Amino acid sequence: MSQLRLHLNEHTGGCSPAVLAAIRSLTREDLACYPDYDEVTRACEGWFGVPRGWVQLTNGLDEGLKLVAELAARRSGVSHGSDTGQTRVRHVPDPALIVEPAFEMYAASADAIGLPHRHIPPEPNFRFPLEALLAAISPATPLIFLTDPNNPTGLAIPPGAVERIAIAAPATLVFLDEAYAEYSGRTFIGPALERHRNLIVGRTFAKAFGMAGLRAGALVAHPDTLAPIRRHIPPFNVNVVAARALQAALDDRAYVAASVAAAAESREMVYSWCRQRGIPHWPSEGNFVLMRVGDPTEPVVRGMAGRGILVRDRTTAPGCGGCIRITAGIVDHTRACLAALEDVLASRTN
Amino acid sequence: MSQLRLHLNEHTGGCSPAVLAAIRSLTREDLACYPDYDEVTRACEGWFGVPRGWVQLTNGLDEGLKLVAELAARRSGVSHGSDTGQTRVRHVPDPALIVEPAFEMYAASADAIGLPHRHIPPEPNFRFPLEALLAAISPATPLIFLTDPNNPTGLAIPPGAVERIAIAAPATLVFLDEAYAEYSGRTFIGPALERHRNLIVGRTFAKAFGMAGLRAGALVAHPDTLAPIRRHIPPFNVNVVAARALQAALDDRAYVAASVAAAAESREMVYSWCRQRGIPHWPSEGNFVLMRVGDPTEPVVRGMAGRGILVRDRTTAPGCGGCIRITAGIVDHTRACLAALEDVLASRTN
Repeated sequence: MSQLRLHLNEHTGGCSPAVLAAIRSLTREDLACYPDYDEVTRACEGWFGVPRGWVQLTNGLDEGLKLVAELAARRSGVSHGSDTGQTRVRHVPDPALIVEPAFEMYAASADAIGLPHRHIPPEPNFRFPLEALLAAISPATPLIFLTDPNNPTGLAIPPGAVERIAIAAPATLVFLDEAYAEYSGRTFIGPALERHRNLIVGRTFAKAFGMAGLRAGALVAHPDTLAPIRRHIPPFNVNVVAARALQAALDDRAYVAASVAAAAESREMVYSWCRQRGIPHWPSEGNFVLMRVGDPTEPVVRGMAGRGILVRDRTTAPGCGGCIRITAGIVDHTRACLAALEDVLASRTN
Repeated sequence: MSQLRLHLNEHTGGCSPAVLAAIRSLTREDLACYPDYDEVTRACEGWFGVPRGWVQLTNGLDEGLKLVAELAARRSGVSHGSDTGQTRVRHVPDPALIVEPAFEMYAASADAIGLPHRHIPPEPNFRFPLEALLAAISPATPLIFLTDPNNPTGLAIPPGAVERIAIAAPATLVFLDEAYAEYSGRTFIGPALERHRNLIVGRTFAKAFGMAGLRAGALVAHPDTLAPIRRHIPPFNVNVVAARALQAALDDRAYVAASVAAAAESREMVYSWCRQRGIPHWPSEGNFVLMRVGDPTEPVVRGMAGRGILVRDRTTAPGCGGCIRITAGIVDHTRACLAALEDVLASRTN
């Protein structure tokens, strides 16, 4: 790679060799046929340890976000399926709730579907705004977007908070984005998910599996919760290559474990580097670290790009003033990043 | 292949060998990075002969249909982006119009987005219901779905009709599905599309390119028309493998030409077979033929499946009573299909 991409939390080590081999085994006929997802969906259910019917594959988790927003909109009466075309009195729904700082695609998905949204800012030092969120919930709240661990901070949602939210909002669809769950080693998938039929967990194979280019995500929930999504999902939403690749990836558990171990080592390296320099940062459960290099951040990001390393400017995200986010995955890449950052920050001071 | 799949209008000859080679050249790092579509989008614009900005790639044309329905819904006020949450009087929009018989995904896309829809039945012998459609248009019609050539009939929209519709519905989004345009050799893309800013053409690389499994489609329209779709499209909607494959496919024009020629030969073979047996059928501009084998169709479809050949039962589609649709692409496959059908129909008569 001519550039080191540390701005999108990709796995810069690439996907598993087993994935590459699976892709290279595809024939011209395989590529010309609409895919079938039975086998790979079963494999995913096995991976997540859930019964049959609990996993819906999506074209990256981005499609999952849109499907969830669509469902929330249909349930809240934003939209309707009649064909009478007559004028009626309708109610604008309460807004979807987004806990900040948040992945931008939550708001984008709501906007695409015409769902209003309200953003709950974090408390100081990114403390999870549980009370503010609970206070914002109404019986007509269509959707709540949560992330555990958070992106861009890498911080966990406090224990018990997700269940309190799910209980406080029984008529609301609660979406819990677990894109980085392989790194955190924590998931809501299990008995708690069985109890809360208003909750959908989102997962992706972009990060720890190193398959961002393949676009494979999953919604995990009780089949009754997924049913109204399944009624409206395009029948061939996931590419045949992604389906075949995912099956191979799920068989290579050692590769995911190695990705997770490398990220843990990388993060420690970043923390130690930051501590030595007095740079505020947050302990992350993802393959990335948020650090406060101070405003203006733009020259830092530009200086890094000039050295061939892309990092993410997060200064405009709520609570993230003066912050950049760097991917912390492959140890050598983290080392190169920190060396360049040393350089860039030094030249800024001078 | 253990089964001959002639039920989904796939290219049963597979994709171009150049596509397979392109896919096999992808690295582990390519698969781990979010894709960039600049180069392949430029290549598509070249293929369609349109200026820069006129092509939006989609995850199969299915995603394109949803994006178009979303745009129509936002424009018609089904949905909204405010975050006030207060109650207001809103209008239910007029229905989207779907000319039958039609690809099922039009109604499915409208349903997913909560857009009501009204279906315009064909005139006898599938004559295009232009007057009925024009009469159904109101200033509040959000969306019209057209297909040229039609699926499942394979028939063309009469010359001039698309322009008349676009002019009669200036406030309406007109979607023209040209999934089979390589076979018909006819497209609305060109000066007429430049004139009608309310029109979006849909194309797919699933059919003549033999890439159904790769999920690559395109919306083609003036950039001003595409802009509100682009604002709401997930940034990585097309798989990196599909993007790379498409670029290779567009360079292999001979492969597409051969697909088209094979379909033409196959269709003639089907027509001649039908004529000899007095089986009503329609001259098709796609890689398929609709024929009226008579009700009940189910034993015919089942009998074919028993002989390892999948064909599509269309008897419940408007105007299609007693009809099946068979893919007519690769000549050997068409020959095998007709031989089996001979058998199945003979055993039905006995």
